[in-house]
Amino acid sequence: MAPAEITIAPDRQDITTTVTFDAPPAAVFRAITDPELIPRWWGGGNFETTVERLDLRPGGLWCYVSRDPAGTPSVFRGVCHDVDAPKRLVQTLELEGVPGGVQLGVFTFEDLGGRTLHRQVSVFQSVEERDAWVHPGMSEIMREGMRRVGEIAEGLS
Amino acid sequence: MAPAEITIAPDRQDITTTVTFDAPPAAVFRAITDPELIPRWWGGGNFETTVERLDLRPGGLWCYVSRDPAGTPSVFRGVCHDVDAPKRLVQTLELEGVPGGVQLGVFTFEDLGGRTLHRQVSVFQSVEERDAWVHPGMSEIMREGMRRVGEIAEGLS
Repeated sequence: MAPAEITIAPDRQDITTTVTFDAPPAAVFRAITDPELIPRWWGGGNFETTVERLDLRPGGLWCYVSRDPAGTPSVFRGVCHDVDAPKRLVQTLELEGVPGGVQLGVFTFEDLGGRTLHRQVSVFQSVEERDAWVHPGMSEIMREGMRRVGEIAEGLS
Repeated sequence: MAPAEITIAPDRQDITTTVTFDAPPAAVFRAITDPELIPRWWGGGNFETTVERLDLRPGGLWCYVSRDPAGTPSVFRGVCHDVDAPKRLVQTLELEGVPGGVQLGVFTFEDLGGRTLHRQVSVFQSVEERDAWVHPGMSEIMREGMRRVGEIAEGLS
């Protein structure tokens, strides 16, 4: 698979990630949403993630805690809006302690006949909030995460 | 109170509504979230709205049905992300039958000492989706709704 393409265009309020996996949508959807599999890709190589909660239905809460090598936790949490497996997932995301920084993610999984075009669009309250979210190394962590999702999904299919 | 100010700036993915009410945040928050009061302002003058569901907590679902004078229903629904009464409310919103059109709304209620600066920022997946949401008369419906919220809140305080 080719590395994920991450688009952070000037003056926009979103981040778009696009990646094509060599696995069908059901396998990719499972790699991204199975609590047993999420710790294997979330947060990139240096973080240890635990899935505290993931209730995949409209209104369902989710919460992942990622610890860096020093043990410092980052708490990610949100609410599912729509769950239409294995085609579409809509959910909010907030990193605890970052005031105001709620984002809305729309994840789609398009069937390319055994392969999957996966797209994540995350919108922020403003360009400034989006830019505050982006940090050096974020794209690399995201690409590494998607590379691992690909490995997991290929192993499932 | 002055009419609500609605900002739909070119090339942005959001709509911002700002209005100052002559009532404290608790009254404004209640006018906007009490199922008994919502039908009195939601949808502007020509719509009849029923609150099918409103569960004000993280993960709580909400659903309002607005009928135009011919009885044709519009179903609005979403999920609450954060509820911090009477200061802040974060929720998703979707109009059923409009594919992909999920928006994220962040509503704040700032205490101006007996008056309230209320702000709604609604972000969309793209500029195109925002522009598709905006229709002639929308600003007028929104302003009329906020005018009624002001009347209700002033009556409560």
